[in-house]
Order: sequence, then structure tokens, then C-alpha cells
Amino acid sequence: MTSPTLLIERQDHVLTLTLNRPERANAFNLEMTRALQRALRAEASDPDVRCVVLRGSGNYFSAGQDLREMEQVAGESYYQHLRQTYNPLIVQLRRLEKPVLASLRGAVAGAALGIALACDLRIAAEGTRFTVGFLGIGLVPDSGVSLFLPLMIGLGRASALAFSNVPFDAAQALDWGVVNRVTSPDELDAQTMAWAQQLARGPVKAMGLTKRAFNHALLPNLEDVLEYEGQLQAIAQHHSEHREGVQAFMQKRPPKFY
Amino acid sequence: MTSPTLLIERQDHVLTLTLNRPERANAFNLEMTRALQRALRAEASDPDVRCVVLRGSGNYFSAGQDLREMEQVAGESYYQHLRQTYNPLIVQLRRLEKPVLASLRGAVAGAALGIALACDLRIAAEGTRFTVGFLGIGLVPDSGVSLFLPLMIGLGRASALAFSNVPFDAAQALDWGVVNRVTSPDELDAQTMAWAQQLARGPVKAMGLTKRAFNHALLPNLEDVLEYEGQLQAIAQHHSEHREGVQAFMQKRPPKFY
Amino acid sequence: MTSPTLLIERQDHVLTLTLNRPERANAFNLEMTRALQRALRAEASDPDVRCVVLRGSGNYFSAGQDLREMEQVAGESYYQHLRQTYNPLIVQLRRLEKPVLASLRGAVAGAALGIALACDLRIAAEGTRFTVGFLGIGLVPDSGVSLFLPLMIGLGRASALAFSNVPFDAAQALDWGVVNRVTSPDELDAQTMAWAQQLARGPVKAMGLTKRAFNHALLPNLEDVLEYEGQLQAIAQHHSEHREGVQAFMQKRPPKFY
Repeated sequence: MTSPTLLIERQDHVLTLTLNRPERANAFNLEMTRALQRALRAEASDPDVRCVVLRGSGNYFSAGQDLREMEQVAGESYYQHLRQTYNPLIVQLRRLEKPVLASLRGAVAGAALGIALACDLRIAAEGTRFTVGFLGIGLVPDSGVSLFLPLMIGLGRASALAFSNVPFDAAQALDWGVVNRVTSPDELDAQTMAWAQQLARGPVKAMGLTKRAFNHALLPNLEDVLEYEGQLQAIAQHHSEHREGVQAFMQKRPPKFY
Repeated sequence: MTSPTLLIERQDHVLTLTLNRPERANAFNLEMTRALQRALRAEASDPDVRCVVLRGSGNYFSAGQDLREMEQVAGESYYQHLRQTYNPLIVQLRRLEKPVLASLRGAVAGAALGIALACDLRIAAEGTRFTVGFLGIGLVPDSGVSLFLPLMIGLGRASALAFSNVPFDAAQALDWGVVNRVTSPDELDAQTMAWAQQLARGPVKAMGLTKRAFNHALLPNLEDVLEYEGQLQAIAQHHSEHREGVQAFMQKRPPKFY
Repeated sequence: MTSPTLLIERQDHVLTLTLNRPERANAFNLEMTRALQRALRAEASDPDVRCVVLRGSGNYFSAGQDLREMEQVAGESYYQHLRQTYNPLIVQLRRLEKPVLASLRGAVAGAALGIALACDLRIAAEGTRFTVGFLGIGLVPDSGVSLFLPLMIGLGRASALAFSNVPFDAAQALDWGVVNRVTSPDELDAQTMAWAQQLARGPVKAMGLTKRAFNHALLPNLEDVLEYEGQLQAIAQHHSEHREGVQAFMQKRPPKFY
């Protein structure tokens, strides 16, 4: 049941889950997504685990969906793909009643941005680049990004970032409240672990109930949003913009959308 | 069907709509409002149009509702007025599935603030003054301002701005995320067109679907909010504060509300 | 019907309500809570009152729920307690159709943070410390904090503050829009009264209707949120973290949550 795409470690009461496809910037393929779902269901729910850290191996958190695999499933429905992959993952992260800390570096893009925003807390290394990503290949924000991002930074900024596909950096993310702390790349791992251990010593039951309170007050429509994102993605999937966006990406040239 | 109150131009794939009552600070009267509704329905929906710019002629974006005409319709229901004018306009702007860029200068007040906030993106000239406006004449925020403004800047700041009727400037608007870019007044038109052309070269279908996603996630209650604003405005209309506010405005003296 | 725990003064058209248990940092006990409910129902609804100021006597706004009394009601249901105390108070503050200005200094913690955030406007003395508080004693945010705080500062910052129980200061609160103005402690009372009198001269009917508009647009779920917070608090009440948190607080030692 273990997979080389996800490293699972426990130290004291902290469970560290490391996305491990460094040769692909830790982009999500089906195997890694399922391994993460499984770890959140099994390992993370162990009462002995009092804090979960989500990070990436190597120089990146994650570039989001692996576009090469997306090409393979291009004949299939992105809607069904989302229902099996990111949508349950986002719900799992929000429903896990213990603190989840995302430790970010390098790139956080597309579905990986949604996953990072679904965590409770975020620490980022200087230089981390956050990209909405989807529209660059003619798709629409999924993985909860259509809800999390405008809720956090406002609809105006979210629209500009989504439409332009231009990244924002860690300092900007801190100023906007998208991340809670920024540190040097060298210190990221140590600071992440120190924070996680501090969280694990805290009132974890009350933290879990507080997540429930925040979910209820601010994200009552999360599952409906994820479902709707999937329906829109099914429309985007069959539009010429998506074909052009993917081809341009593969051919390493700028897309030509009209 | 054309009206001198709204200039309509096309260059490449950019449709520019210019509010054109400069002698009245581009304040909205019924003719201009209907001309804008018509242009959004007909011109803007042309598939050849890939980006819409909304701006004002002369030194102002718009001062909002023309109070002189409001005087004329004072015997009528403001509720019915809103249902025919700003409410459908706001919904049109949010439902138009292509990027809409507001180019702002001088004054943005009252209903014009709601219209500007309903656009996807905003660029403003230095010195632009944003005013909630309504309470200065004893009315309540309409045109979606009761939703857009607190969503963007928080309920505390929105309450203070609404109650005081004090303007905020372009630099403050940028810091709060109310506008995306600020430029010198001299460069506003060129920067607006450069941005609009860049947007028009982008994945416009995906942008349109992204607007749908944002609307669904963040503004599911928009039409209900517009309806409720209208009901409250009908109450405010018949209160002595409104009569006093309008008279003071016409007589260019401070209002005396008690 | 008067109580020494709440001072009630009127000057011009401003009603000033002063939480008055300075020997307990103005912590809320049942008597003070009921006195405040009564004053909002009776005094504040007088048409002659055009602005309400809420403040604390001495060096603090309020430390929140009085934990000593909480100990006394420990056998009872916190859910029932909330239904009788803070939940109706929060609703009263939001439904009172005139401006309510919180004047803050020293400490604003726990339920008192919820009460302050339910007011329309906030002015704070430099050095004021804002603390979520609840999780420090193994409880969950109530008094609307689970809604007001993430709406104002974003879910990421709210999660960090709630989990850590670390205070933020007045300068930070101003930057985040949690307070509208910051002043020196010496000038707080004079500035508060000057602002209140200015508000009282304004279009108070329109302000009241604007509160209704904001409530409808942004807080349609407020009563449901308060009810749900109460249900979660009933769970937290019976968990060992709460017992440990309260005992550690009483014994002035750090809590040991596992």
C-alpha cells in the first residue's frame, strides 16, 4: 500500500508527508494523489498523530497536476478525474480535526495551490512562487482555488492573478495573509518542524473543533464549489483553448489563443 | 439605438465603452444607463470582442446617479428604479463571460462604485477618489456595494467608509486590493489599452468560465443582495434624512440630519 | 434594574456603556452580561440616542468570560450559557440600527473580541492586545469569532491566531482592518467621544439601514454560526483539554495538553 511517490515519517507526534516526484517538480499523478488520500485517511487519523506537515522533496512543493498524465487521460472526463482526486483530498484536509501545516518552497501551482490553501497554516521559503496556473492551459481554477483564493485576497486580486497567470512571491503572500510565515530556504525544514512540534503540544482537540467552526462559518459551500469547479472544467476541457494551451506547454512555446 | 451618452469604440478585439456626460461628471441618467445595458447585451456579446473596457470621458469615471434626475423621479419608487437600472447592469457585468476592465480617474462614487467593483479588474489614475456616497444624501449603498465593498476590504472598513462618506484614494485602493494597478493620469489611457489588448490575447473562454466559478463561489447571493438593497432604498427614500440630504446637496450646504 | 457592573451615561445624543469590573479586567459575569443586554434593549433603542459607545473602565476593554464564574457553572451546559449570554448580545449589537463604536484599550480577549468585532467601528489605544483566547483553555471560538475574524483577516491568519493563542497588537489590527483608528492611550476617551458625536450628527437612519444591508449581504448565517459555535463548545466543555486549561490558568502554570 506504500508508494515511492509519498514519503511518510513520524517524529514525536508529527506526521510528515512528503510529495516525492522531484524529477517532475512533485507534480501530482494518480498514484501520488491516491497515496496522499490514503495517508490522510489512515496515518493522519491515528490519535497519536497531533500535527500533520505536508511538504515536497527537493526544490519544489508541487507544480500541480502532471500534464503528461493529463494528456493520457485526455480522452476521459476531467470532471470524473477531479471527483476521484483533488476534490476528496481538499475535503479530507479541511475535515481532518488536527492542525495541518503546509511547508512551501520553489513552486506552488494549480491544484497544488488549492491543496496548500486547504491546509490550516502555511510557512514558505523566500523565493517561493505561487501561480494560479490553470488558465495558462485554458482551464479554470479547481481544487477549491475558486473559493479559497478570492476569500483570502479579494475578488479583484484573484481575478487578476487567475487571468494573467503571473506568479506572486512569498513576501507578497505574507503581506496578503496567504502564508503565515516566511523563512530562508535553508531554515525552512527546521522551522517547519519546530512549529509542528509546538502545534502538537497544543490543545489539538480544540484545534480540530475550531476547524469545524471555521469550515461551518466560512466554507459551508466547499463541496458544492468543488462540484461546480468540476462541471466548469468539463466545459473547458473540450474547448480549443485547452488543446492549444497544453500543446504550447509541451512544445515550450507561448500559447496562441486566437 | 445609439446615444451620445455612451461612446462605443472597437480596436482589435477590445470594446471600449465611454460614459459620456462629462458636463455632469458622467453621472448616470436613465438614457446613459440604458445605453450601457444595451451595449453590454449587444456589442459586448459579439464573439469578436475579447475584452471590454469601461471608462469615463473627461476628468471623471462617474459621480454615480445623477441627483437632478433623481429629483424628477422622486415621486416614483427607487426600488423600481434600481430594478430597471443598476441591478440588471451589475448582473450583466458579472455574467459577461469575458474580462471587463474598469479604467478609473477623478471620482468614482455611489452607483458608479458598485459598477466599478462589479468589473473584473480595475486600473486607476493617481488622485482618483472613491466615495461610498449614498449616506451623504440619506440613502443606503446599492448597486451591489453592500456586498462587494465589505467582501473586498472587510466589514469594519466598509462600515467606516459608508457611515462617514469620506473618500479613499487610489493608493489606499491599491493597498486594499480594490484596484489592481495605479498609474499617472497621463498614462492611464495607454496603460488601459495595453492591458486590455494583453487580456484579449489570453484564454478568454477560460476567463469567462473562471468568472462563473468566482460568481458561484463568492457571489451566490448577488441577485438577492441587489433585491434587498432595493427594498432598503425604498425605506430610505421616504425618510426625512433623504429629503434633507438632497436639498443640502442642491443648495451646496452641509446637511443637517437632526 | 441598574447594576454596578455597567455604567450608563448620556451626553448629547451619545450613549456610553462602560463595562465596570475593573478589578477583574472587566471580565464578563452573568450580571454584567445581562446588564449589557438590558441597556442595549432599553437605553440604546431610545430614539434620542444616535450613537452607542462600548468601552471598559480602567486599563482594559475586557478579558472575556470570567473564568471564576465559568468554574461555578462548570456543571451546567456551556451551550445553554452561550444561548443566554453572548449569542443574543452579538445579535443585538448587529441589529441595533444606529452606529456602535467600540473603544478599546489594554486587553480584548475571547468573548470580548467577539463583542468588539460585532460593533460597527473600533478605535483602539496603542498597546491594546487582541487575543482569540478560547483555545488556551481548550475551548473553541464563540461569540461570533469563528465568523467575524476569518471574514476580516482571512482564514489563514485566523487559524494561526486561534491555534497559537498569541495576541496581536493595535498596529497590526489597524493594518488588517480589525480596528479603524489607533490613538495614544491618553487621547482614547476624547477621540472616542469626538468620533461618537460626529456619528450622532450623521444620517443615523441611513446608517441603521446600511447595517441591515451589510448583515444581509455578509452575515446572513450569523445566528446559525452562533448556534453551531455553542454546539461545538458543548463538546469542548467535556474534553480533558478544557479541564487542564482551566486548572493551569488558575494555578498560573503552562497547560499540559498531552
